[in-house]
Amino acid sequence: MISEKLIQQIAFIKEIDKLKYIQRKTKLFYSDRNENDAEHSWHLAMMAIVLAEHSNKSIDILKVVKMVLIHDIVEIDAGDTFIYDTTKNHTNTDEELLAAKRIFGLLPAEQSNELIEIWEEFEAGETNEAKFARAMDRLEPLLQNASNNGGTWAEFNVPYQKVYDKKKVIKEGSDTIWDFAEKLIDESVEKGILKK
Amino acid sequence: MISEKLIQQIAFIKEIDKLKYIQRKTKLFYSDRNENDAEHSWHLAMMAIVLAEHSNKSIDILKVVKMVLIHDIVEIDAGDTFIYDTTKNHTNTDEELLAAKRIFGLLPAEQSNELIEIWEEFEAGETNEAKFARAMDRLEPLLQNASNNGGTWAEFNVPYQKVYDKKKVIKEGSDTIWDFAEKLIDESVEKGILKK
Repeated sequence: MISEKLIQQIAFIKEIDKLKYIQRKTKLFYSDRNENDAEHSWHLAMMAIVLAEHSNKSIDILKVVKMVLIHDIVEIDAGDTFIYDTTKNHTNTDEELLAAKRIFGLLPAEQSNELIEIWEEFEAGETNEAKFARAMDRLEPLLQNASNNGGTWAEFNVPYQKVYDKKKVIKEGSDTIWDFAEKLIDESVEKGILKK
Repeated sequence: MISEKLIQQIAFIKEIDKLKYIQRKTKLFYSDRNENDAEHSWHLAMMAIVLAEHSNKSIDILKVVKMVLIHDIVEIDAGDTFIYDTTKNHTNTDEELLAAKRIFGLLPAEQSNELIEIWEEFEAGETNEAKFARAMDRLEPLLQNASNNGGTWAEFNVPYQKVYDKKKVIKEGSDTIWDFAEKLIDESVEKGILKK
């Protein structure tokens, strides 16, 4: 006899396969191939594990890893929102909340609630874990764009100040990673791959 | 002043991007698109989190998640080994150990040693965490093949008994997931997508 809970969990596991089809604007490192959300989420989880010691505050690393693994799952329904797109609101939209309820709602109630809460915590960006997770989410495309002659900055004519303002969020999670990021942004300006 | 440790960690983060190019034999769910190792690793991490309660033994879930996130990184150098390929040895090969030392060796020594140990623990398959992580690694392609009219079983003429013997490893991690898996294998035989 297979339990109802396990059947629900397997249905969720099959559904989230769709994350592998959600294309981001950013490209892989030194590449012109777009990254998808599943690859991106894996990379952030690895980054969180490897960089945890740089967090400004003490963090529950398992919670951070869960956050980054699930943070884009709502995009299965809501689609990817490009961070420099000025026509769209990037805060926790109604569409994303509906998506969270539908997709995490495939799980048994307790698990569904836990993952929705973790996703909302990430979106709110107020806890130590959310700040560090968001720092990872801002750092990866910075590294990618710097390796791709400006990547989406060049492709969409994103100016220095806009990049700087978006990336500054890294400092809330980690001062030391922000020092590195700021230096990389400055170097990108010097190289001419980011316009000041 | 950026610390040497952070520079090493960033070098590792950039290097492991290559996992996104390692193609597996299995396809995405209900799809003919091959899965890559980064997508696979993300999916196993999600499965480990969602299915943890089914582990036969108490497990450190963060360790399981680390295991599945890193378990295929050696394939950046050593390539993917197809589980039903009889010409290759699947136990921790010399090539894989060299790969582990090179890639994890990009990290600061303490971290490098930790990740090599976790990878070796996964490969040995003896601890509770390794048994559960390996159950996830066997379950995902079973779900995929069942959704793809037999997938790699059909494509490479893999018979029932060989599939059964490989999948039986799931039982060491979880009796309840094995009950589900065994039922799915039986159903695949009934549907004619796995030959007995």
